Amino acid sequence: MSITVVGSVAFDAVKTPFGERERMLGGAATHFALAASFFDQVHVVGRVGADFSDADLDVVATRGTSIADIERVPDGKTFFWVGEYGWDLNSRETLDTQLNVFEDFQPRLSESSRDCDVLFLANIQPELQLGVLEQCGQVQFVAMDSMNLWIDIARPALEEVIRRVDCLMLNDAELRQLTARPSIVSAARDVLELGPTVVVVKQGEYGAALITEDQFFALPAYPLERVVDPTGAGDTFAGGFVGYLARHRDKPFTQPVVRLAMAYGTALASFNVEEFGTERVERLSAAEVDGRVEELRRITQFEHTLAPLETS
Amino acid sequence: MSITVVGSVAFDAVKTPFGERERMLGGAATHFALAASFFDQVHVVGRVGADFSDADLDVVATRGTSIADIERVPDGKTFFWVGEYGWDLNSRETLDTQLNVFEDFQPRLSESSRDCDVLFLANIQPELQLGVLEQCGQVQFVAMDSMNLWIDIARPALEEVIRRVDCLMLNDAELRQLTARPSIVSAARDVLELGPTVVVVKQGEYGAALITEDQFFALPAYPLERVVDPTGAGDTFAGGFVGYLARHRDKPFTQPVVRLAMAYGTALASFNVEEFGTERVERLSAAEVDGRVEELRRITQFEHTLAPLETS
Repeated sequence: MSITVVGSVAFDAVKTPFGERERMLGGAATHFALAASFFDQVHVVGRVGADFSDADLDVVATRGTSIADIERVPDGKTFFWVGEYGWDLNSRETLDTQLNVFEDFQPRLSESSRDCDVLFLANIQPELQLGVLEQCGQVQFVAMDSMNLWIDIARPALEEVIRRVDCLMLNDAELRQLTARPSIVSAARDVLELGPTVVVVKQGEYGAALITEDQFFALPAYPLERVVDPTGAGDTFAGGFVGYLARHRDKPFTQPVVRLAMAYGTALASFNVEEFGTERVERLSAAEVDGRVEELRRITQFEHTLAPLETS
Repeated sequence: MSITVVGSVAFDAVKTPFGERERMLGGAATHFALAASFFDQVHVVGRVGADFSDADLDVVATRGTSIADIERVPDGKTFFWVGEYGWDLNSRETLDTQLNVFEDFQPRLSESSRDCDVLFLANIQPELQLGVLEQCGQVQFVAMDSMNLWIDIARPALEEVIRRVDCLMLNDAELRQLTARPSIVSAARDVLELGPTVVVVKQGEYGAALITEDQFFALPAYPLERVVDPTGAGDTFAGGFVGYLARHRDKPFTQPVVRLAMAYGTALASFNVEEFGTERVERLSAAEVDGRVEELRRITQFEHTLAPLETS
């Protein structure tokens, strides 16, 4: 009973209007694992360099996550991303991307990682995602992320991965680019025709939407007075969403479960952005997450109890 | 018992990826009235030219709206706006703005218009909004809109209007510009300190949020497979929101009322964008509006019924 995530484990240098970090722990698999570890046993498959310390590994291992499949390359350097956010944190610029040991990453999953119930393919080359799928024969549920780069330069492989997963998670601009459809509803329908049963559209500070053949569900983001660093919010959301589905895998696509999965993803992402990198989610408690899900419910629900327009 | 709206009654020329109209009925007061007229008697205060036909006036008068305070200038031309939307309808460019008779618009309210319970100051020069406020001494509830132009060139007058209204409705970029705060929550708190009791943040295709001293509420937009023309969506939203509050003015700021007001605004705006200009809302029925509010409830609600993380 476990979740495997394959993706980047990295260092980030980030500058936001609220401060900066010259080197902090990051990477899609790291953020995903820190969130998903609230729900189930997580295995991280990744590759780091000699500069990645035992203390860094300890953070990835928070809440019992297995780091056995993180290869540490003795003479290599860890993937390093440098970015800067604009004033309202809605725009970000990548200043530098040093792939380092990630350039030759060829995910090799141990038996424990292959033996997962749920697999998350974080944003890496579609060819590598396909390779992981081939190693995981028995997995019950596969979710994936991707990015504009792969839509641009590796579309056939990307479409092949999409055909083989259960859930595609993209931000709204990527989904529009992938499908050439301006409406996210129509765009999601195109994706569902390829194979997935669920499309999750991440909308950053505005929230997220979930679309299946017969359901639509949308949640605004949790309102914050101060967002310090949005890096990793999408992967933290994915960790909460996929983690919640994994925990309730006896009834994974019933309406209460997918909606609460969206709520847990939203709550976790909101904590992630309150501090730099992994700083907030590292020390987060289950009670805090539950509390924010309940608050999110409180600020989004309404009853249609008053007289309707037509009859009054 | 009535709602007065003061603002533009206009013609628009619009090009979207789904077609174009060389001249269609538009203007903030028109869109507002078409939505608000579902809830209460509406009075429109505006100014048009000789090119504005009786048939155009008949549309503004849909559902009993009074057009007695729309002045028709015999030798003048009606305000004309020309715009074009980008592929995903999130960006729009103003190609031409011909103020025409609107340039010398000095709102003069008849006794019936002054005698309203609820007043909506659509987006016009803040000085004119102040003039209207001075004519309406007894009004119970005043809501207002504005735009980036007035923040740029008429900030002192704009702030004076904001101090004197109950509700400020702006889009998120305008609210950020007004307050120089990146977070809409913090930005709204700054506005509440000036005087209003409610701030409504319009977020276009993403929905809307409402902030008071002790409440936050957010709703995603109603999902549509095809958005044809977003022109007037914000004013239609305002008409639904303000209209609903006017109808329930015995308990205007209780939680069920403001939340349903947000839902009615959202539902009405979603109809507005399905066709060009006023075409869809003109022939809309109360039952259709109620139906979409109920659907909106269905796709945004979740129960926190499963075991919380902490105890399971």
